[in-house]
Amino acid sequence: MMEKCRATRRLFSHSFKSLFNHRSVSDHSTLRSASVFTHHFSDNGQRCIPLFQLQKSDLLARASFSRDYKQTFWPPLGRGLGGMMCALQFRSFGSAGTKIQRNPSFATLNSDDVTYFKGVLGEKNVVQDEDRLEFVNADWMHKYKGSSRLLLLPTTTDQVSQILKYCNSRHLAVVPQGGNTGLVGGSVPVFDEVIISMSSMNNIVDFDKVSGMLVCEAGCILENLISFLDNQGFIMPLDLGAKGSCQIGGNVSTNAGGLRLIRHGSLHGNVLGLEAVLANGNVLDMLGTLRKDNTGYDLKHLFIGSEGSLGIVTKVSILTPPKLSSVNIAFIACKDYLSCQRLLLEAKRKLGEILSAFEFWDSEAMDLVLNHLEGVRNPLPPSVHNFYVLIETTSSDESYDKEKLEAFLLRSMESGLISDGVLAQDINQASSFWRIREGIPEALMRAGPIYKYDLSLPVENMYNLVEEMRVRLAQKAKVVGYGHLGDGNLHLNISAPQYDDMILAQVEPYVYEWTSKHRGSISAEHGLGLMKANEIFYSKSHETVQVMASIKKLLDPNGILNPYKVLPHSLSTH
Amino acid sequence: MMEKCRATRRLFSHSFKSLFNHRSVSDHSTLRSASVFTHHFSDNGQRCIPLFQLQKSDLLARASFSRDYKQTFWPPLGRGLGGMMCALQFRSFGSAGTKIQRNPSFATLNSDDVTYFKGVLGEKNVVQDEDRLEFVNADWMHKYKGSSRLLLLPTTTDQVSQILKYCNSRHLAVVPQGGNTGLVGGSVPVFDEVIISMSSMNNIVDFDKVSGMLVCEAGCILENLISFLDNQGFIMPLDLGAKGSCQIGGNVSTNAGGLRLIRHGSLHGNVLGLEAVLANGNVLDMLGTLRKDNTGYDLKHLFIGSEGSLGIVTKVSILTPPKLSSVNIAFIACKDYLSCQRLLLEAKRKLGEILSAFEFWDSEAMDLVLNHLEGVRNPLPPSVHNFYVLIETTSSDESYDKEKLEAFLLRSMESGLISDGVLAQDINQASSFWRIREGIPEALMRAGPIYKYDLSLPVENMYNLVEEMRVRLAQKAKVVGYGHLGDGNLHLNISAPQYDDMILAQVEPYVYEWTSKHRGSISAEHGLGLMKANEIFYSKSHETVQVMASIKKLLDPNGILNPYKVLPHSLSTH
Repeated sequence: MMEKCRATRRLFSHSFKSLFNHRSVSDHSTLRSASVFTHHFSDNGQRCIPLFQLQKSDLLARASFSRDYKQTFWPPLGRGLGGMMCALQFRSFGSAGTKIQRNPSFATLNSDDVTYFKGVLGEKNVVQDEDRLEFVNADWMHKYKGSSRLLLLPTTTDQVSQILKYCNSRHLAVVPQGGNTGLVGGSVPVFDEVIISMSSMNNIVDFDKVSGMLVCEAGCILENLISFLDNQGFIMPLDLGAKGSCQIGGNVSTNAGGLRLIRHGSLHGNVLGLEAVLANGNVLDMLGTLRKDNTGYDLKHLFIGSEGSLGIVTKVSILTPPKLSSVNIAFIACKDYLSCQRLLLEAKRKLGEILSAFEFWDSEAMDLVLNHLEGVRNPLPPSVHNFYVLIETTSSDESYDKEKLEAFLLRSMESGLISDGVLAQDINQASSFWRIREGIPEALMRAGPIYKYDLSLPVENMYNLVEEMRVRLAQKAKVVGYGHLGDGNLHLNISAPQYDDMILAQVEPYVYEWTSKHRGSISAEHGLGLMKANEIFYSKSHETVQVMASIKKLLDPNGILNPYKVLPHSLSTH
Repeated sequence: MMEKCRATRRLFSHSFKSLFNHRSVSDHSTLRSASVFTHHFSDNGQRCIPLFQLQKSDLLARASFSRDYKQTFWPPLGRGLGGMMCALQFRSFGSAGTKIQRNPSFATLNSDDVTYFKGVLGEKNVVQDEDRLEFVNADWMHKYKGSSRLLLLPTTTDQVSQILKYCNSRHLAVVPQGGNTGLVGGSVPVFDEVIISMSSMNNIVDFDKVSGMLVCEAGCILENLISFLDNQGFIMPLDLGAKGSCQIGGNVSTNAGGLRLIRHGSLHGNVLGLEAVLANGNVLDMLGTLRKDNTGYDLKHLFIGSEGSLGIVTKVSILTPPKLSSVNIAFIACKDYLSCQRLLLEAKRKLGEILSAFEFWDSEAMDLVLNHLEGVRNPLPPSVHNFYVLIETTSSDESYDKEKLEAFLLRSMESGLISDGVLAQDINQASSFWRIREGIPEALMRAGPIYKYDLSLPVENMYNLVEEMRVRLAQKAKVVGYGHLGDGNLHLNISAPQYDDMILAQVEPYVYEWTSKHRGSISAEHGLGLMKANEIFYSKSHETVQVMASIKKLLDPNGILNPYKVLPHSLSTH
């Protein structure tokens, strides 16, 4: 755990350093207040907004340390709060692991197995050291913990193939592991599954500067790919708070969403090919690098988001967009949720191709941030606003796009969609705006016990759930809504004075039922893993889940790949 | 066939009418020569390019009649050339149908079957009329022709379910049919399969103006959806020459590529949900409308591009982008293929978010167009250019983006990537530029016998194949290369004095082998259908095809869904 903690700290320091690459750290001492730096466009329609144009690289560096609450406040808060977070996560979600039994059809590891693996991988890539095993047996939150006695570190696809073929014949269950940054217990053993870490398969295989096609091994750390591409003048279509640790194979296997989805779409669109090893050791080479290929069923999609339960992804090819030079950020207040919705519609239409983020949060979230985080201030004058929106644009041309955003904001102000707003003038302001949005989870944690839900819902009635929960809970808890409005992704958080089964009973299964009724998703981007495997029916029909189970049975008849995850236990163990 | 022909003519007339909606047809008489209208930016770096900003609706209308050679010159050339095209297609591609035998495990239709279907669908939706059957038994090219004795026209998903459940129990083979606009024999019976037409399921189910999410039935004609969305201020992320006839269910089932792929990506990214009926009649409701949903395997992708062989798509939900107001088109000459490549790279970087088309063709293609098409002229001064590029931009703001494109072209001229070029000033010029690119297939057809290949290849060595073919064929035939450079999609065409087995032997299997060696695709966007089912191994590994076959067996154990298509016959009939 300490090693994990240190790794996160390094990322944190590194990112701060990158953040001030362009403006020296000593500049920090000259930071003026937001009211001096920000240019304010007020209700009277008058504007004075000489925008400061950020360099993309500045913003990306900033993003890397604070986008994900895990990376953000785990290090500053240290082990104490980490422990608290652990406990609360167990409280609200963590019971799944206790209900299931080890599948008795799985074999138990013996010394002959270890000898075989050493023959394939060499001594040093077959790890039985208890300290190292303890680290890979647990997820970063210490919410899930297995008892594997073996960690394997293959370096080639052929080795993965040999390992799986052997495990399949022996009925030895395995868990594929990337950066182990997941949130649903998908990447750690539940019992004694053999851990197959992809960390040693971390080579970039090819990059085509004309097409932007990147081919790499599954163990490549996302941040390393981002850095590599930055030097080539490209970006990853995927960005996550966990980028310093997560691996592209894990990203693909969990269909990670992240921050660029509104602009670049999901990995189902950006991953153009992959190589996967099936449970029986067969290697599926689908590592195409073509934008168009209509030759048979596009099987790669089965491996995107199946969380390692259908095969182990060993290589991927990804279409990477060119790096664009101009980034602008606006911090906006809206009077109601309908205005936020309409502003999103207008932003899609008027900013269209340059829109790269559209985040929203309510006044409850804002109050929490202002009350619980140090050094955070509201860049807008003290006033009651019900909703806040952060708009980011990214484009290829500073001069034109700056004016385009300004004009859009002015029109939106005049039409009443925006009540008030400011535009970031420099990297510090941009960072302070993002800090408010990204500080919400941290503020929530500081405020006390919390029930967290990550939902996809139709934008038009997304916020109704927040309001309904307020009615249900009355004064018993504070209900907070925020999230990626542009992607229809709501983070519903219920902040209570204490953990209370009465409160939980008011929340669950109501939230899942409400989500299901509105054809939403109970897992927008984290996957099901162990945590929500049994909740799948809230988002998928029985017929569909039945087909999933039959495909699992087809590709992994012995069920050795990441058992107990994704599919409901009633289906996956029979 | 005549009915089909008339339908196509109607589309043609209609589109011309739309084209001149904004500028009256009488304006046509005042058309000045390109040299007067176009503003030329020449080698000396001087520019005088006061661009005319086209309305998106103008361009879309124009696109509708001429993007696809099928729709473009089938009507003008009439049945005569249609017959010739038929012959040549049979010559170069059409042998698959003659080699296969009817699967003896399939039942033969009897009167009890017809009675059952009438009970489910009503009399009028069970068609046995020979004239109507003749029409749906053949594809539009008359290249493939089945002998079905029954056409079914379900109006609901439940009816599709009942039909399939019955057919499955009876071992009656079926072929799902949309607009029947395919190019590979995928949508017509091979023998006596029952035809299930989706034409009567053509309702728009829902549209969300905030998210741009469209939910509709599979039989909706693409052009109708485009018109509906246009009124709502949105566009389809898919556009095809066949839009007047093709249906969205067929588009999704064949993963149609089309003209907007470079900008909006493939249907795997844009289709957010679908409903499909399996061979056993089970309905898979995966009709989600969420951008983010990580709850289990994303099975919808199995039905995107599987050409109706795994299930019948009955409804789809699609994310539609907002309609943008500004369109510009540049006609450019480059000295070599490397310049085209580098220009593409620069365009992606500098135009980035506004780039909506990047097409290229070589001087052989240009010569053919100038020699064989009436009223077409080169908008550039007589000069020897080796390559031509058409760049289209589409964006949300006329004033800014016009300047952005101008600046890009000027820089590219100064850096030597562009040898010469013009910018369209009005709808007529834009249309004339597109006419050159889109006239290439027609010019090729007029020039004589032709061998056509539709390939996806890595951009960097795509044109090597054209050059290698020239060496192989020496003076025996003219080799022409053009296509969607931005998507890595090459149309390789070999124009010969006559059909000649010696020439064919020089071309095949060399082209497929070359494509395979470079990890290309032998079918960029048309699918495999009947025509290329046995060629799948040129693009997919044996292990991958084996998994495809096992999934086919899993979902359609009796093989009743669109038999003889997609998978190699050796695998699909056992």
